[in-house]
Parts: sequence; C-alpha cells; structure tokens
Amino acid sequence: MKQGFGKLASLKEAIEIMHSLVKEKDNESIKLDNALNRVLAGDVTAKIDVPHFRRAAMDGFAVRAETTFGASNANPKELDKEDCIETVTGALLPENMDSVLMVEYTEKNNGKIKIYKAVTPGENIVNIGSDIKRGDLLLKKGNVLNPRFIGVLASQGMKEISAKKKLVIAYFSTGNEILSLNEKLEQGKVYDINSFTIKNSIINEKCDVISLGIAKDDKEEIKNKILEGIGKADFLLLSGGSSLGEKDFMLEAVKELGEVLVHGIAVKPGKPVLIGKVKEKLVLGLPGYPTSALSNFYILVLPLIDKILGLKREIKTVKARLSKKIVSTVGRYEFLAVKLDNDTAIPIQKGSSAITTLAEADGFIEIDENTEVLEKDSSVCVRLF
Amino acid sequence: MKQGFGKLASLKEAIEIMHSLVKEKDNESIKLDNALNRVLAGDVTAKIDVPHFRRAAMDGFAVRAETTFGASNANPKELDKEDCIETVTGALLPENMDSVLMVEYTEKNNGKIKIYKAVTPGENIVNIGSDIKRGDLLLKKGNVLNPRFIGVLASQGMKEISAKKKLVIAYFSTGNEILSLNEKLEQGKVYDINSFTIKNSIINEKCDVISLGIAKDDKEEIKNKILEGIGKADFLLLSGGSSLGEKDFMLEAVKELGEVLVHGIAVKPGKPVLIGKVKEKLVLGLPGYPTSALSNFYILVLPLIDKILGLKREIKTVKARLSKKIVSTVGRYEFLAVKLDNDTAIPIQKGSSAITTLAEADGFIEIDENTEVLEKDSSVCVRLF
Repeated sequence: MKQGFGKLASLKEAIEIMHSLVKEKDNESIKLDNALNRVLAGDVTAKIDVPHFRRAAMDGFAVRAETTFGASNANPKELDKEDCIETVTGALLPENMDSVLMVEYTEKNNGKIKIYKAVTPGENIVNIGSDIKRGDLLLKKGNVLNPRFIGVLASQGMKEISAKKKLVIAYFSTGNEILSLNEKLEQGKVYDINSFTIKNSIINEKCDVISLGIAKDDKEEIKNKILEGIGKADFLLLSGGSSLGEKDFMLEAVKELGEVLVHGIAVKPGKPVLIGKVKEKLVLGLPGYPTSALSNFYILVLPLIDKILGLKREIKTVKARLSKKIVSTVGRYEFLAVKLDNDTAIPIQKGSSAITTLAEADGFIEIDENTEVLEKDSSVCVRLF
Repeated sequence: MKQGFGKLASLKEAIEIMHSLVKEKDNESIKLDNALNRVLAGDVTAKIDVPHFRRAAMDGFAVRAETTFGASNANPKELDKEDCIETVTGALLPENMDSVLMVEYTEKNNGKIKIYKAVTPGENIVNIGSDIKRGDLLLKKGNVLNPRFIGVLASQGMKEISAKKKLVIAYFSTGNEILSLNEKLEQGKVYDINSFTIKNSIINEKCDVISLGIAKDDKEEIKNKILEGIGKADFLLLSGGSSLGEKDFMLEAVKELGEVLVHGIAVKPGKPVLIGKVKEKLVLGLPGYPTSALSNFYILVLPLIDKILGLKREIKTVKARLSKKIVSTVGRYEFLAVKLDNDTAIPIQKGSSAITTLAEADGFIEIDENTEVLEKDSSVCVRLF
C-alpha cells in the first residue's frame, strides 16, 4: 500500500477542531496603568459625563453672547470686567455666561475689555456630556486596549478594569538537524529559525511564551517536552517532524500521550500539521519549514488566540492588482505571500523552505479551495502582516 | 494690542526645527533573543548560504532521476535499495542522487522499492543558496526587526546584532484642573487622559517612557519636572498649558530654562504647540486637549522617533471615499479623524476636546495647507493607526 496522509482536513475543519479543544480565558482585574494591548473582559459603560461641567473651548473671555452683539473690528465694544471674565481653554464656565470670546479678538484697556467680535450663544463652549454621556456604551468585550481606548477609560477615572488573563503558549522545535545559535554549523544541519519566528510572533500577539528549546528526533524527549509545555501553558506549539518520513516521532509521541485528531491539512504551504489533544489540552504540530510554520501561525494560531481571548481582530487589508497569473490547486487553500509595489501585488514563490519568502513579503493573499486560477491584473485582497 | 500666537510655524517647519534639535541614537550590541521590534543599526549581509547543502524538499526517496523514467501508476518500476535511499523533508541529499520521489508514489516490497511515478533531475530538491546566497544583502539599516526578519538573522546563526539603543522619552501632564485617577472628581476638574494616551503610545513605539505625573500650574514645579525629564530622557513631552491664557506657565518655564523656538503651529487640531530647547535637549509642549495631544503625537512625535532611530516607518494606508464634503482652512494642515465602513471614510468631528474622537476612529486623513475643500465621494488616502 502506498503511504500518505490519508484524508486531509480542510482549513475550516482544522480550525473548528482546534477551537473545540480550547475554552475562553478567565478574567482578572488589572490596573489601567498596565492595560496596554490587553483584552477587555466585558462591555464598559460610562459612569460620568465627559466633560461633566461646561468648559471654555478657547482661551479668552467668558461672556453672555448678547452683550457682544454688534462688536466688530471696525466697531469694537467695551465690556466691564464682571461681564467679561477671563478664562482659559478647558476651564469651568461661570454659571451666568453662555459663550467664550477668543482672546485674539480682545484687548485690555483701563480695567475694561475692548472686544472686536461678536459671539453667538454657545460659541466656543464644550457642553456637559458632549464627549461622553453617562450610560453610553464606551467599549466592548473583546476590544484590545490601544492607547486611545485607554484614554477613554482614563476619562472615567477607572483605575482598574476587568481583562482577559494573559494567554500562555509553549513552543519547541524538533529535529536532529536543528542547531541552536550556540552550536557550530555542520553539513546537514541548519540553525533553528522557527523558535525565533514563532516565539516573537507570540510576543507580538501580547501573549506570554514558554520557550522549550529544541528536541532531538527522540520520542521520549518529545513526550517530555510536550508534557512540560502543556503543564505550563494554555496550549502547545511545536514544529518539525510531522511529515511522512520513516519515523514520525511527533505523531507517535502525541498518540502515546493522548489523541491525534488531525494529521495533514489541505493548505499550501503547510500541509504537515498535527492537531492533538493531550490531558485535555491542544497540541499543535507545525511543519518544520520556516515559511510553512509561520504561515500556519497566521492562519491557524491567530484565530485560536482570538477565540480564547474572545477578541475581534482588526485585520488590515489593501486591494491590489496581481502582477502575474497564479495557478492554484483546487481542494487546497493557498497562502500566497506577496510584496506590494504601489497597487501591485507581486507573488513571492521561493518555496516553503525559504525564510526569505515571508521576510520579503508585505502580506498574503488567501486563495480558497475552489479557486484554480487568478488571472494577471485581477483585483486581490492583500492581508497585511 | 490684541494678543495672539504671532506667526505660526508650518507643520514642515516645526518638524525641521525639532529634527535639528536631536541626533541619531548610538548603537549597541544586543542578543537576537531580545531583538524583537528593535531597529537595525547597519546593513546585514549573508555570511552563509541557506541552505548550505542540498536538501530533500519532500519526504520520500532520493534517486537519480534517470532510473525512474518510465515509471507510472499503470507501469510501476522496482528499484534496488542503493538506488532509492529513503529520506525526509529537509535532510541532506546523498551525493550521487539528483532528485527526490515523494513517498506517496512509492511502496516497499521485499527489500525493493516499487515506484509509481518518474521524476526529473532536480525535482523536490532545495539547492544550496536557493533561499539566501552568501553575500546577499539581507536587511538594511533602519529595518525594524519583526519576527520574519529575526528568522532571517537566525538562519545565519547570528547570536548578536547591532541595534540602535532604545529611545527614552519623558512625559508629564500640566494643569490645576487635571486629576490623577487616585483623586475624587470635583467641579471644574477632569481626569488625566493624556498621561495614558501618550505614555502608551510611546510604549507601542517600543520606546522607554519616564512618567513624571502631573504638574500644577506652577512655574517652578514645571521647571523642576522639565529638568528631571531631560536629565533622564532623550527628549521631553508635556501637555497642557501652552495656549494664550493669562499665565502660560509652560512658555515661561521653557523661556527661563532655555529657548523657545516655536510657539503655535498651523495645524488643526493641535495649534498650541511649544518647541523649546533646554540644555541642548528638545522640549515639546503638546496641547492639553486629548485629541490634539494625540494627533500631534502622530504627526510630530512619530517622525521624530523615526529620525532619532534612523528608521523608515511602514505607514499603512487604505484608499476610501469620503462620506461628506469637508471644508478645510487654507494655510493650516488638518488632521481629520475618520472611521472606515468598508470603502467609505466617515469623518469624526466631535472637536479637539473629545477623547472619543480618536477612540472611534480607524485612522486619519491628512489635508494639506493648500486644500480648501474635499468633495463628498472624493477618493482619500486614510492612514491607519
């Protein structure tokens, strides 16, 4: 009998199976000081109006608009001090005043104020609740707290908020041919790239990473690292080793420790994926090739992070024209790395073993299972890294 | 005489003056382990070929292609073990072999290998240097080290790299009306928003931040904080207080400590900007209003960070149609916050005092000094946050 992966899972199936193995993270209370890029655990409603008092919008003089009517450059008017109260941007407006005349149109003169412009009632005033009204829905569960969102929470005087606990992901590379940077390069060996790309991609996602180094092609070593990883993390990633070679140590290790749910997915590049369950935790085996490992991170791990943290990712895309005809395989999802040159998307097709493929790319095009050909000059949607 | 800012600096002039006050950061050697988002201090050239040996691109059997010619599903061929050497993805190819037959097209049979497909010379092989050739320019001075770039450096076995030292930026808010989150809200007071938006924006830029809290409207307190900030940081940001009110403590403080170079810039929002030099260091006073302070951060501080670190920022933009007519002021650059709804850019015009303006926005449109009107439905370039 010929050897093979058997039936490949579709990308959608693989994602669904992975999602069935994880649950949403618990919440914790954190200080607003440390909230950057954390995920909101619940909706946030305004508790106070912003501003909660009428403010001057400009430096100048608080006035009753009617007292300024008729004033102009040609016909300045003089107001008494009690009718024209000096104020600064952001200050509380005196109760009996209804507008602010900008300082540029005024002149002090023997205890009186000469004004060169009339204002209308409400001019240059920031009204109560004009920015935020008490009861407004400010932010939603799943929002990632960027500096602007944190500013909104600060306006409410919130010292603490409820956020999703940080996600912890463990990772190790496998393979007798993989060298750490401390080792000397030898024939047949390559430096460990995936530890660097995967670890740093996890950090960029604001998750904590547990780096477990490199495992040799040794079933027991792989089993030990899997157990260490799932003991410390929410789920485990590893790379290398789950192809169809003589000895698939990763496959054997997961089988002995738990259950293999998927072996091989219908994506290009990145077919040799293993999805397993060990002690109720997800073990995701990525291909050894750097481009495949990283492209699988984008299409498999990012949605998983979003699922566990309950967040809605803002995906940045641009429209572009394809620089050349692309023939894809029906039945396989294709991840096509592209470089952007103005509005042109130029495919980078160096093969899945090349780390430079993704380093040169600005993003990728997703070609679904049912598409066979993308014509030159066709309009494509490029997802930016 | 009427009071006023006098001649406003244009955005371009303001940026040039700020850039003349700073110099490029020194370099330092850092470990690749800690290189994420750091800025490369020099070009990096490949020292080794990647791969540096011929590798199998697939799991299967290393063969001489000519021995496979004629094999097909209908007419399988049998090869001896020495002509058909089992190999795995990524492995060193035996010297006398020139191609790899995928394992899916083979069958082991009584010590021989039955093959169901012919291959061409070079098929399923990754050649020496096909990813990276020794001498290739890999990365450039000023590149920000994302996970993919770090992968390229790992492929070279580089344990350390030369990076720009981290930029340190000090910040404080000013104003008697500004409350810390620990204080109880009172009439006429507002919570400190800018400390949160500016501090976190600095952190998002991978710079270190020195937070100096809140200064009252007290010249000596402001002077002390300015001196503390420039003592610890590469430059200092502060917000609030540099408008045209009765007492511009920020202006006075900088004048007494050093020199004021710009007071007021021709941008909307964000006019009340102060650019000063104290002990040869830049002091940049931002407006007190949250939207203005943050929009000035985007248009003034980001280019400054880029200048000091020598980096070329990847600005993400999308094209969109403007949802309504916008009238701008000739002679003033306008920063127009917009929300994106598919391909439509919807201006958010809540005024510069509103923190929600930028929280609701996806990006902004830059309207130059010479543009007076942007028509409804016109094509605009939206810079994403």
